[in-house]
Amino acid sequence: MTRIDDLPIRDELRGKSPYGAPQLDVPVQLNTNENPYPLPEPLVERIAERVREAARGLNRYPDREAVELRTRLAAYLTRTTGHPVEVGQVWAANGSNEVIQQLLQAFGGPGRTALGFEPSYSMHSLISRGTGTTWISGPRDADFTVDVEAARAAIAEHRPHVVFVTSPNNPTGTAVDADTVLSLYEAAQAARPSLFVVDEAYVEFSHRPSLLPLLAGRPNLVLSRTMSKAFGAAGLRLGYLAADPAVVDAVRLVRLPYHLSSVTQATALAALEHTDTLLKYVEQLKAERDRLVTGLRSAGYEVTDSDANFVQFGRFEDSHAAWQTILGHGVLVRDNGVPGWLRVSAGTPAENDAFLDAVRAIKKEL
Amino acid sequence: MTRIDDLPIRDELRGKSPYGAPQLDVPVQLNTNENPYPLPEPLVERIAERVREAARGLNRYPDREAVELRTRLAAYLTRTTGHPVEVGQVWAANGSNEVIQQLLQAFGGPGRTALGFEPSYSMHSLISRGTGTTWISGPRDADFTVDVEAARAAIAEHRPHVVFVTSPNNPTGTAVDADTVLSLYEAAQAARPSLFVVDEAYVEFSHRPSLLPLLAGRPNLVLSRTMSKAFGAAGLRLGYLAADPAVVDAVRLVRLPYHLSSVTQATALAALEHTDTLLKYVEQLKAERDRLVTGLRSAGYEVTDSDANFVQFGRFEDSHAAWQTILGHGVLVRDNGVPGWLRVSAGTPAENDAFLDAVRAIKKEL
Repeated sequence: MTRIDDLPIRDELRGKSPYGAPQLDVPVQLNTNENPYPLPEPLVERIAERVREAARGLNRYPDREAVELRTRLAAYLTRTTGHPVEVGQVWAANGSNEVIQQLLQAFGGPGRTALGFEPSYSMHSLISRGTGTTWISGPRDADFTVDVEAARAAIAEHRPHVVFVTSPNNPTGTAVDADTVLSLYEAAQAARPSLFVVDEAYVEFSHRPSLLPLLAGRPNLVLSRTMSKAFGAAGLRLGYLAADPAVVDAVRLVRLPYHLSSVTQATALAALEHTDTLLKYVEQLKAERDRLVTGLRSAGYEVTDSDANFVQFGRFEDSHAAWQTILGHGVLVRDNGVPGWLRVSAGTPAENDAFLDAVRAIKKEL
Repeated sequence: MTRIDDLPIRDELRGKSPYGAPQLDVPVQLNTNENPYPLPEPLVERIAERVREAARGLNRYPDREAVELRTRLAAYLTRTTGHPVEVGQVWAANGSNEVIQQLLQAFGGPGRTALGFEPSYSMHSLISRGTGTTWISGPRDADFTVDVEAARAAIAEHRPHVVFVTSPNNPTGTAVDADTVLSLYEAAQAARPSLFVVDEAYVEFSHRPSLLPLLAGRPNLVLSRTMSKAFGAAGLRLGYLAADPAVVDAVRLVRLPYHLSSVTQATALAALEHTDTLLKYVEQLKAERDRLVTGLRSAGYEVTDSDANFVQFGRFEDSHAAWQTILGHGVLVRDNGVPGWLRVSAGTPAENDAFLDAVRAIKKEL
């Protein structure tokens, strides 16, 4: 049998394992920050209808520019932030992972560096490496907030070509305020002209508003978004960005042509027609998230403040052992490799009850 | 207004334009090798049905391994080639472009080289550049066939890490025989351990059988395929590969997690259920392709032998001017930048009649 290392693979990939949460068959799955609410049946029907229509032209390549979809995404951003966004400012791809990959292909890559404040979304560093961009791990405080002075100092020292700020941050849950982002953006531009990416995958769940208004007059600033969480459509793989139209032009130079299929475009358009219904689920999830925070604290756990649809809790002497113990109670949470901490996604009320029962029961075991 | 060059974009992208055929509103579009036959209505209904079912679980991430889809693709390859292919040998992504990108991320990349025999599918060189792989243009004969000795010499000289052979070749149409591929594979392995990719996007239209049987005992050989052409599903963006399972393991190290959406998987599965019907269209298109060859030759054009669903014809003193003249007759063909030649996709009988009328009419103008 041939093994990976027998192949002429790149040296830095030898001995590596693929990224991905364990996919285990467990009754309560609260490990990947999915939205626990299935799409409402009228939306399911609308998706079938729109995809049927798209399937009639499936022999043709999709709209390479996804104009209708980007127009609707721009309208969604305009409506929810109160700041006008044009279609030319929006780009869409197969998940925010592909958005980030395209940004790094255009603005990072070999001989360039990207910096993020860790622990944070691990795909930022993984996609950096996958695109040949050298990754630099920037600092966070012990409470997982970004300390402005320490962060500015790291930027000044490393002069990165791309900076990532995740707000709300995954896996810790905390959002970053606009003043901090502005200060870091200015520090980054002072160090060298660089792309500054604010990853707002979870922003719909936040107490703080989107940083979208900061785009005006800042052509090197990009917001990255997704339909996986607030729109309850992780299976759709639809990520998007908002930025100066020049950034969208730049991404067109590296995107694979026709990267976004007709069925993806059709499904996303259907979901955007049902925005109001889906955002009501977001409100329910925020309430459940707050209930998780309260429940965990009453049970004697430490909890990081959360603006997302998940909660980081601890502390554990051995977080992997704690993960295993919780799994033994039929609840799958996430071990993100942050020493002492685990992450739980806000599920349905029943799932959250099962989780809270489990963590109360095991408090003595740990 | 900010322009691309005002941004901190990579130097090699400055002044570049995005890849892509002009999308013009012309009555007869024979420029992108699309299958002209819309999917049959029962398949459209089956897609709607399968996507409706997938939409009910759209809040969850897709099967990261796309096991059901890869199993069906393996069965399709087994049935159409007569050689057994296992699910572990098959990988799928958003178009063969993404398959190629993943292969180059794992086996090409910075400090490595890829070689193809040009003119050929231009995305091979573009994706090489996009992944930081140095592209080397290998030779073809004046009749666009691959000369074994010249090709072996180029491989021995450049010692590439990745070799591409496109069979049937795009845009010229000619297939490469198994002996030639074997000889080049051996030359490549003698030069250094390297990945050897045979791009069979158009193989269902060929007079020659697939090279899939060559995979046995050759772990560095990969076949790339697509559902865009024979399955009439360019809008679906479903590419796949067959290779040693170790190659699939290697690709898992660089793929973006959950890269293939639930709706893409559902739609592709529906299309695979209708394989027999779709392959009947392929037979019609082969007959139409042969009619194009005969018609063009009777009209006094030179035509390159074609195993694909398109035909390369010429010669023109100024191929771009010829392209424009044909466009003036309401027919959009493709100028691939091969001096003296243009490419026309096999369309419906009516579309091909319109094309043949146009090229007969303009013969005097050119």
